[in-house]
Amino acid sequence: MLETAAVDIVFYLFDRITVLDAVGPYEVLSNLPGAKVTFTGERVGEVRSDRKLGLMVDVARDDVDRADILVFPGGGGTRPLMSDEPTLAWVRRIHETTKWTTSVCTGALVLGAAGLLQGVRATTFWRERELLATLGATVVHDRVVRDGKIVTAAGVSSGIDMALTLAGWECGDEIAQAIQLGIEYDPQPPYDSGSPEKASPEVLARFR
Amino acid sequence: MLETAAVDIVFYLFDRITVLDAVGPYEVLSNLPGAKVTFTGERVGEVRSDRKLGLMVDVARDDVDRADILVFPGGGGTRPLMSDEPTLAWVRRIHETTKWTTSVCTGALVLGAAGLLQGVRATTFWRERELLATLGATVVHDRVVRDGKIVTAAGVSSGIDMALTLAGWECGDEIAQAIQLGIEYDPQPPYDSGSPEKASPEVLARFR
Repeated sequence: MLETAAVDIVFYLFDRITVLDAVGPYEVLSNLPGAKVTFTGERVGEVRSDRKLGLMVDVARDDVDRADILVFPGGGGTRPLMSDEPTLAWVRRIHETTKWTTSVCTGALVLGAAGLLQGVRATTFWRERELLATLGATVVHDRVVRDGKIVTAAGVSSGIDMALTLAGWECGDEIAQAIQLGIEYDPQPPYDSGSPEKASPEVLARFR
Repeated sequence: MLETAAVDIVFYLFDRITVLDAVGPYEVLSNLPGAKVTFTGERVGEVRSDRKLGLMVDVARDDVDRADILVFPGGGGTRPLMSDEPTLAWVRRIHETTKWTTSVCTGALVLGAAGLLQGVRATTFWRERELLATLGATVVHDRVVRDGKIVTAAGVSSGIDMALTLAGWECGDEIAQAIQLGIEYDPQPPYDSGSPEKASPEVLARFR
């Protein structure tokens, strides 16, 4: 009997991360057959999310030299990373080894700052579409956008849809559907206000 | 001008938690006006999720004596908690102080083991509906179930819907909709397999 091949899935954690950006894909992708999940970051130890949940980096990024799937989440902390050359160099280096390079929300800004999105179709959190375009991306207003091996998701919760879509490409529909059942992902939001195209002017104004 | 009253929101963390159960509601409820979020657990320090993400407990439960909103998430680690009298006593004590006592996924089993669900309409992860009924609950197959101040959600991802619903009750529709927009929660799952009623027999068999 053949063994299931390992799938190395690497999540990048940093201070002022939006946790759901990482945890949505994590709850999906960690169920892939052979999944080996690593939480990396600048150094081993605790990071704090934008709303102060503490998360643990288990492996320093200097000790991570490849990934089958890289997930770069977003959050307020992506702004300083966009000009942090050691981080961008790491992203470029890992990207050369990946089967899939992915981002959620403003994680796309870091991929863009690293130069990975030149002429690439991509998306990000709706408020940062213009900034993403300045980084060379062809901005698409879809929730999940694939261009070659780069898969970008829109804001925060869209990482769940991105990861399920990726699970299907990677392992087939039946496994992806079983994962969806395992996280009981049968969304029934009480409102239909989850995109700027759908929200009322009053809600948009309140958000801004 | 009146100040916004503080809303104390307490998340209970434990080993073998399913992280999305907590993080879905956290990304919603931490945006409530006046939100003051506390991550508690048996003792200060790290817990490890069912798939090995490390999360930080910042305040020991013995130092938490009340909550406006209690969120009890699920995961494999709820099984031992169901017979852990100090945990159950803490849940009962905090419940006496809450405006809302909530659970996600198998977190409902802990509320039930604490005796809070006797004759109460409630839900849980689809695989544990029968077990929840043995704890005295009237099991309802909805995604979000409210009975008085107790609000239970179905499996894992349903905590997002629960928290948005609760945000609307607590702060009105417009704020809840602005929060939905802020997490770009416009779900577009690639499959429709997120409940046992919708999944194919093959997917159900694979899951079991």
